[in-house]
Amino acid sequence: METKPLTKYIAEFIGTFCLVLFGCGSAVIAGANIPNVFVSGIGLLGISLAFGVSVVVMAYTIGPISGCHINPAISISMLAAGKLSFKDTLGYVIFQCIGAIAASGVLYLIVSGQPGFVLGKYGLGANGWGEGYLGQYSTQSAFIAETVFTFLFLIVIFGTTAKRANPGMAGLAIGLSLTLIHLVVIPITGTSVNPARSLGPAIFDGGAALSQLWLFIVAPILGGLLAAAFWKGILEEKETITKKVVEVHDDLSINRT
Amino acid sequence: METKPLTKYIAEFIGTFCLVLFGCGSAVIAGANIPNVFVSGIGLLGISLAFGVSVVVMAYTIGPISGCHINPAISISMLAAGKLSFKDTLGYVIFQCIGAIAASGVLYLIVSGQPGFVLGKYGLGANGWGEGYLGQYSTQSAFIAETVFTFLFLIVIFGTTAKRANPGMAGLAIGLSLTLIHLVVIPITGTSVNPARSLGPAIFDGGAALSQLWLFIVAPILGGLLAAAFWKGILEEKETITKKVVEVHDDLSINRT
Amino acid sequence: METKPLTKYIAEFIGTFCLVLFGCGSAVIAGANIPNVFVSGIGLLGISLAFGVSVVVMAYTIGPISGCHINPAISISMLAAGKLSFKDTLGYVIFQCIGAIAASGVLYLIVSGQPGFVLGKYGLGANGWGEGYLGQYSTQSAFIAETVFTFLFLIVIFGTTAKRANPGMAGLAIGLSLTLIHLVVIPITGTSVNPARSLGPAIFDGGAALSQLWLFIVAPILGGLLAAAFWKGILEEKETITKKVVEVHDDLSINRT
Amino acid sequence: METKPLTKYIAEFIGTFCLVLFGCGSAVIAGANIPNVFVSGIGLLGISLAFGVSVVVMAYTIGPISGCHINPAISISMLAAGKLSFKDTLGYVIFQCIGAIAASGVLYLIVSGQPGFVLGKYGLGANGWGEGYLGQYSTQSAFIAETVFTFLFLIVIFGTTAKRANPGMAGLAIGLSLTLIHLVVIPITGTSVNPARSLGPAIFDGGAALSQLWLFIVAPILGGLLAAAFWKGILEEKETITKKVVEVHDDLSINRT
Repeated sequence: METKPLTKYIAEFIGTFCLVLFGCGSAVIAGANIPNVFVSGIGLLGISLAFGVSVVVMAYTIGPISGCHINPAISISMLAAGKLSFKDTLGYVIFQCIGAIAASGVLYLIVSGQPGFVLGKYGLGANGWGEGYLGQYSTQSAFIAETVFTFLFLIVIFGTTAKRANPGMAGLAIGLSLTLIHLVVIPITGTSVNPARSLGPAIFDGGAALSQLWLFIVAPILGGLLAAAFWKGILEEKETITKKVVEVHDDLSINRT
Repeated sequence: METKPLTKYIAEFIGTFCLVLFGCGSAVIAGANIPNVFVSGIGLLGISLAFGVSVVVMAYTIGPISGCHINPAISISMLAAGKLSFKDTLGYVIFQCIGAIAASGVLYLIVSGQPGFVLGKYGLGANGWGEGYLGQYSTQSAFIAETVFTFLFLIVIFGTTAKRANPGMAGLAIGLSLTLIHLVVIPITGTSVNPARSLGPAIFDGGAALSQLWLFIVAPILGGLLAAAFWKGILEEKETITKKVVEVHDDLSINRT
Repeated sequence: METKPLTKYIAEFIGTFCLVLFGCGSAVIAGANIPNVFVSGIGLLGISLAFGVSVVVMAYTIGPISGCHINPAISISMLAAGKLSFKDTLGYVIFQCIGAIAASGVLYLIVSGQPGFVLGKYGLGANGWGEGYLGQYSTQSAFIAETVFTFLFLIVIFGTTAKRANPGMAGLAIGLSLTLIHLVVIPITGTSVNPARSLGPAIFDGGAALSQLWLFIVAPILGGLLAAAFWKGILEEKETITKKVVEVHDDLSINRT
Repeated sequence: METKPLTKYIAEFIGTFCLVLFGCGSAVIAGANIPNVFVSGIGLLGISLAFGVSVVVMAYTIGPISGCHINPAISISMLAAGKLSFKDTLGYVIFQCIGAIAASGVLYLIVSGQPGFVLGKYGLGANGWGEGYLGQYSTQSAFIAETVFTFLFLIVIFGTTAKRANPGMAGLAIGLSLTLIHLVVIPITGTSVNPARSLGPAIFDGGAALSQLWLFIVAPILGGLLAAAFWKGILEEKETITKKVVEVHDDLSINRT
């Protein structure tokens, strides 16, 4: 039975909603140590796990419905690789963006209930770079990192979902690769590799988060397109179509007549 | 062979006992740094893993016996979705609550053996919010968080156990989703999404833990019911019952006569 | 093909060797922060993961050879449950103890190469309790914790390896349950639930580690025996032997004569 | 269909590129706390996870193409065990080394965009030991550790990929064993157990990193060869070749003629 398009789009909405709410939520609410509490915050390691494990969980939840892209760079790369129709790419990207924005809205609703909270610079987990942003890396570092790591992310996706791969482990491997990417890239850009994930908080945070948004649209999509070309051109198994000939032997009935 | 009801209820008792003993135990005993010891405590990340991994482990231990709900909000949501009988829902919820209370009792027995231990406010890992509780979030934040995250928890449960999902990975995905929820929500309420988990320590901790218990009963059940409605109404695959017709061809024997 | 007994015993040697070298090694070498190094040590969370993940890894490495007990409390519990012969129990326990002692020897060889290292109290990761040992819990707390958590450890082992369980996930669930146990119990006793794991470092550390060794032999074995009784008596599925009758229809050939 | 040699070598290039970029990248960029940022760095635990999970992810991505060695010590050990041809061993090792060097190059490109970055001693995550290197362990400790832990790494690889093992879990277990090794060995040598992983950063870091490179070539290969001998000689199942006889019964057609 074929899943209806709208059901798939709603699944992408839910998946991206969870990615942004769990990922950005963990960073904003539990990343740092809480004043006067002797149990330490989750740190960069916990945030990296939150983003990656969100993908693991969603892969096994909505994967059977929509394939669980929850990232416009993935859907566009899949379009380039001939694995997703143009219509579905459009539907996926739109619902991913709405899901991310909705998640940032819910996150804002929750964190605004903390005494002294003021919606400030990168306050809902927006991506960024340069002066005042974590490790203060240059634009060039940010652009290279977002492009290279989205490229590798997509190679993992193409590789683990290929015909000869283990289908049951793809969701786990893809999610863990997003954790790996965060384990390296957070100090540089906060880690996007996903235009929708950057869009959600940027709309609420505004300012630098919004004016830097372009990089988190261009670089991940560029990385995704390069990966589609590299996978199709070099690593993908070129299978000669093997026609499984089922020979129907009629001699049994012939003998009987 | 059908498992006997009492065996299932005892499995739910054991599972909830483990969830509370491992989860709250990790928070109370190993969460903070130990004075004069140079190895740091497990922090919010370790506590989040303890709760979630308890569900992973129990899913593969008692899942084959009872389905491993170990959470009244899950059992009631399953009842609403038509996946659990009223009689079993009642049996599950009662044994879950007893398991949680027993775990808090054993935990109290162990921690009372530490020099200087006094059973105080939230001392056995009770949930709470507001002034003096971790991030000191408002009642509204606590209520929204518990409702929304229980909703998402149940969506993961319905999705990963659906017909077209990978059955072997459901336990892993569901447990990891509980880790994700803790990675965000601990600073707000200590994370319940489970009335039984809140009941156990509240009975021993008393005071605010007991007077705030209502929210951890109402919000998780509300979230669970909304998820049942959303899943049944929107995401669940509407399968037309396909009758697998096995046509028995008798012509072979006919021909032979 | 049946595996030869000695091969199985050597597998248990290797497995216990790894458990102690990885587990105690991580605690002794990488647990605390390194002076003048700005990357923090692995803490109680890292040590908990080291012990548990050692079991995960060994389950898939030597599990197919020996079943991967690597713990006398498990082998003795299996004997009580009628799942291991007396001869094999003896062989397993002896090789487990030798493996643990060998691991502590190799660990001593490595850490003695650090400037200023002196073999002191609990210096190779020995278990203990009371004054001067981590959270300084009482003997009663230590005994209850080691008994209760070994009991739960064995329930996980019986449950995940039962007939109706998912066999591919048992190793993962069992190993993760050992991580859970460490996430709670390290501040109390350093976490044993395994007489061999306690024996190895105690022989080198001597002193209190050796005089406290009795508890880490008695309590885990007691917990294991209680679990065998509980599992056999209450949770184990009493399967009536269902004889799968394959009816051979001879009428086809009869018709032909 | 047989994969073309060059495709396999390119897969090894990509895999080793990812291992070094994720592993060393996480250490260099996110290991320590960022000044004036209140979210703590990933620490030794995060770095250990980055190296190990890179192997997990690559095992399911390029494993179906090349077997995912991404480590000359593994390829050479496989050659010794008769599981890889000499020609492929040469091809694998060369492309692994190029992949590691390329990763260090990209990492240099990214980190050079941080204000105040100067390429210094061990600055790209090079291995080392002795005065000024983490725990300042002796050459003997470093050599024993690299040999013993590579030995155990290969035992895990041989065990989890043996005929009677669970093939779907091998990648997970092997990767997690590399995490375990890092959880112990980072303070001693930074953890190599992989000549290519040491070569990449050493070429850029120069100095001590380059003059100490010999140990990270000799010890891992020695450990790998010892493991091949131990596995083949002691633990490997000696299967008598069982010829599955398929008896073709022709009597049906005979009866009909």
